[in-house]
Amino acid sequence: MVPAFSFRLHRRDGVARLGEIETPHGRVRTPAFMPIGTQATVKGMYPDEVRATGADIVLANTYHLMLRPGPERIAALGGLHKFMNWPHPILTDSGGFQVMSLAALRKISDEGVTFRSHLDGTMYELTPERAIEIQLLLGADIVMQLDECVKLPATESELARGVRLSLAWAERCRRAFERAPPGRALFGIVQGGDDDKRRQQSARSLVAMGFDGYAIGGLAVGEPQDVMLRILDEVAPLLPERAPHYLMGVGTPDDLIEAVARGIDMFDCVLPTRNGRHGLAFSRFGPVNLKNARHADDPRPLDDASACPATRDYSRAYLHHLVKANEMLGAMLLTAINLAYYQELMSGMRTAIAAGRFEAFRAETKEGWARGDIPPP
Amino acid sequence: MVPAFSFRLHRRDGVARLGEIETPHGRVRTPAFMPIGTQATVKGMYPDEVRATGADIVLANTYHLMLRPGPERIAALGGLHKFMNWPHPILTDSGGFQVMSLAALRKISDEGVTFRSHLDGTMYELTPERAIEIQLLLGADIVMQLDECVKLPATESELARGVRLSLAWAERCRRAFERAPPGRALFGIVQGGDDDKRRQQSARSLVAMGFDGYAIGGLAVGEPQDVMLRILDEVAPLLPERAPHYLMGVGTPDDLIEAVARGIDMFDCVLPTRNGRHGLAFSRFGPVNLKNARHADDPRPLDDASACPATRDYSRAYLHHLVKANEMLGAMLLTAINLAYYQELMSGMRTAIAAGRFEAFRAETKEGWARGDIPPP
Repeated sequence: MVPAFSFRLHRRDGVARLGEIETPHGRVRTPAFMPIGTQATVKGMYPDEVRATGADIVLANTYHLMLRPGPERIAALGGLHKFMNWPHPILTDSGGFQVMSLAALRKISDEGVTFRSHLDGTMYELTPERAIEIQLLLGADIVMQLDECVKLPATESELARGVRLSLAWAERCRRAFERAPPGRALFGIVQGGDDDKRRQQSARSLVAMGFDGYAIGGLAVGEPQDVMLRILDEVAPLLPERAPHYLMGVGTPDDLIEAVARGIDMFDCVLPTRNGRHGLAFSRFGPVNLKNARHADDPRPLDDASACPATRDYSRAYLHHLVKANEMLGAMLLTAINLAYYQELMSGMRTAIAAGRFEAFRAETKEGWARGDIPPP
Repeated sequence: MVPAFSFRLHRRDGVARLGEIETPHGRVRTPAFMPIGTQATVKGMYPDEVRATGADIVLANTYHLMLRPGPERIAALGGLHKFMNWPHPILTDSGGFQVMSLAALRKISDEGVTFRSHLDGTMYELTPERAIEIQLLLGADIVMQLDECVKLPATESELARGVRLSLAWAERCRRAFERAPPGRALFGIVQGGDDDKRRQQSARSLVAMGFDGYAIGGLAVGEPQDVMLRILDEVAPLLPERAPHYLMGVGTPDDLIEAVARGIDMFDCVLPTRNGRHGLAFSRFGPVNLKNARHADDPRPLDDASACPATRDYSRAYLHHLVKANEMLGAMLLTAINLAYYQELMSGMRTAIAAGRFEAFRAETKEGWARGDIPPP
């Protein structure tokens, strides 16, 4: 018997929430950070290594997988979990965001989006119905509605269309999702840019339709952090307490703490993986740039108190050498280091909320970042 | 008490030899294949993963490490074993081969080689004495003499100079190596191109000087396999039975079997790692090109009878997808698959020699390759 999607809220500490999502492929402890597995792989990581960092769930990108290798092919091969050797929960996005940022010749209508593949120029159509169909072919545990994500700053009419289209498509996704196998979840996405009123309208309308979870999209798209946090202050209280709240595409470690403090339960972001590939480590001491020559002769690991072997068992001098020499192992180690740090941060927040000391954890963690990196020996 | 270098010959089966090298960092079972860790990392592999494929020893490149991060720096950081987190045996080459193939403005004299770094244009000098000094700074268990490796086809005077310089430098390396810490080994290198007489002269002169082991260099540099095997037939019988015989820079799985059949004990080659990064797998079925579209829908692993998780736990369809999408995990998995196959082949040869059935193993293995890949489902 496959478990169905459910969300249990264990505890609140201020506005911060401790919970647990059940899915057909297992449990997700919240607040949760989802590593990005764009093309059915978290770049530079073996799946069991991703798991070992503490990740309960990964995100895969519908846009990339619909172009290559194709959702029908993945379905015929037994679904995405089997394909990428990740038997744990998977959330797929709807493809909308990447169509806007990657595809050429895109054209939006009420019906959906047509676009040209950035790989081979083939024309595709992505409608709300097809977005759901693809995600069900992939076998996602958590499916996202197709939405229109507007870049900021945006005009009034752009914001208005983003909200209108996203709500219309939300309803069509809901109907299309009625064919889903039992236990899967569909999340709606709040849009509205940096406009409080539109955000409220979007959130209230989605809640009235009823979804398994609620995402806040269209943030971390160019606006300052204080604008993002103001929107969270407005929107999160409008979302049902008994459903997970997911802030899409966010963010820095500081963003994560501040968003959890405002009632967010789920996150995804390319920062830990992408920055790792570019020589930047996240740590208790704040960001550390391994390209910097000060590491060249430093025999100490990045953080000898870490539970992550990549963080603890290789010297800064070696990491610096690998990054300078553009060696794959540098990207592999720093990706592992960053995902482990992100998961350590989430785990720290969960433990703190459980103990009713989230505010103290938030302050201690920020003090650690503010002190900066340990000085050279 | 650190064990000193030694070689024990356990058994002969025809001309094939089963043995064991002891080094300050542990044991090497022979015949042995050494993965290449050019810049202090086997590209795309964690060190413990390299070990798990069955590798007893890796090769690191003096040329690359002398340019970046520099041997004095590695020595100050505790040596190459610690730097690259590989506590097992390491052999370093002398740098001569890469100077010839990579560096610009190289100039050879009796004294040594001067060249311009391919990284930043700095001028360097590599003499026999400096080549030994660098390898001892790195902390190599097995140190190679500086030699001149001549590309084939070569003129008479090029071949003559290669032998003359290599022998003169062998003697200077021997003297410089007298300062080595106890237990390390120095190998001489036979040169002479495709000229049997010069090869014999080179081998006899080196044996008269006396080295811990003997390498055959200047092969697999453009000549057909039968020329290489003819040289092995000439040279290997001239080498002391009680020392390891190392064929440098070789080769394909077939080269390895044919060379072991001629009394070779050690090999290194970029083929399994480099080809892995380019989508080519070595297997019991011969080479398999994962770029080929016939794998796109194939749910079967590369070889479900393999002991290697990378070979057994991922579908051909997924490997094909990763290679086409240029994902790091594709290069990681195929490098692991290839190193595991090379080690499986060496292990198979060792077991066969121990059982006195090397000829049968050689025939069975070649039959497997000749049958080709398993047909699509």
